[in-house]
Amino acid sequence: MDPMEIEKKSFQIISRELGNKKLMPGTEDIVKRVIHCSADFDYADNLVFSENVVPILRNAFLHGCNLVTDTMMAKSGISKPAAEKLGINIHCFIADKEVAQKAKERGITRAAAAIERAAALPGPCVFAIGNAPTAILSLLQCVREEKVDPIAVIGVPVGFVNVIESKEMLSNSKIPHIVARGRKGGSNIAAAICNAVLYSIVQRV
Amino acid sequence: MDPMEIEKKSFQIISRELGNKKLMPGTEDIVKRVIHCSADFDYADNLVFSENVVPILRNAFLHGCNLVTDTMMAKSGISKPAAEKLGINIHCFIADKEVAQKAKERGITRAAAAIERAAALPGPCVFAIGNAPTAILSLLQCVREEKVDPIAVIGVPVGFVNVIESKEMLSNSKIPHIVARGRKGGSNIAAAICNAVLYSIVQRV
Repeated sequence: MDPMEIEKKSFQIISRELGNKKLMPGTEDIVKRVIHCSADFDYADNLVFSENVVPILRNAFLHGCNLVTDTMMAKSGISKPAAEKLGINIHCFIADKEVAQKAKERGITRAAAAIERAAALPGPCVFAIGNAPTAILSLLQCVREEKVDPIAVIGVPVGFVNVIESKEMLSNSKIPHIVARGRKGGSNIAAAICNAVLYSIVQRV
Repeated sequence: MDPMEIEKKSFQIISRELGNKKLMPGTEDIVKRVIHCSADFDYADNLVFSENVVPILRNAFLHGCNLVTDTMMAKSGISKPAAEKLGINIHCFIADKEVAQKAKERGITRAAAAIERAAALPGPCVFAIGNAPTAILSLLQCVREEKVDPIAVIGVPVGFVNVIESKEMLSNSKIPHIVARGRKGGSNIAAAICNAVLYSIVQRV
């Protein structure tokens, strides 16, 4: 069976099982792709979208922004052909040696230092955070200090400590965002959200 | 808060919430790390371990085997410092040009062709499959044809089409395996299982 056929059939099953579930108009592709990558229907309830965040993301991707992830895993999961076609530069500074050095010197996490490094990138920037709540906290701090003005933030870290709180802080901010409420999330979820938006612009390959 | 402290506290929360849940002795670290990476307690019930698969995996990793993943995302998620320390070579052939060419010529998925390529690797091999059911089917075919004799297979693809069936076939085989029953799984789950075994041998960094 052709992989595109399998994907099509998978989305039909997801749609059928969602049944009459109300999803926010314009977010359906994203919710379904997240369920597709996790087989977890909780995301039909967990995902929160700020007003107009989907067209904001589409517009940013259409014009070839920077896309910053907090993990190499999220970076790996984002469609390279789609990103290249749109001139999107995907960055992840978690494995950067200077970032590691700065984190050590200042007693902060590498994830936080990596976000500070990304804040210095020239040009418009979307952030996709799937792992580290400290990455969200660091980003919110950079915004308060006017070091960065993110176009939008995909905030879906996973875990048990500071995760819910960091996502609530992002939800309560004025930054356009997609957040997975509660403990669930992950690098795979962050990548799936990016891919759903990318595939709404360029054909899936 | 120090990342290692956060992880420790997370595992305490997971242990507390698992309560009196019976886990197979020797598999606790793996189950908890999978829950840690997904915040999904379903894995306390979903994960199936064939007899002695954990010591078999530990022994393979201790002696520096090949570790083959079906996605770049799973490869990215596996601890490089731990793998390097043990002399484990992590391979993923999904983006290999020759593999793509062969898949096209023969009308099979790239995931299946990538497993055939991996089967030709010299030396002992563990497979970690988090995405493609066709990767499991291809691997079982290679085993039947005596092209490869895997030390163990981590079979945790996610999805809605052929996924449950592929995992049941692996469960019913004589190959040492860890399988996530049902639809759930993913590259993050495959990486978390590998990391749990790695961290039982070398210290987490």
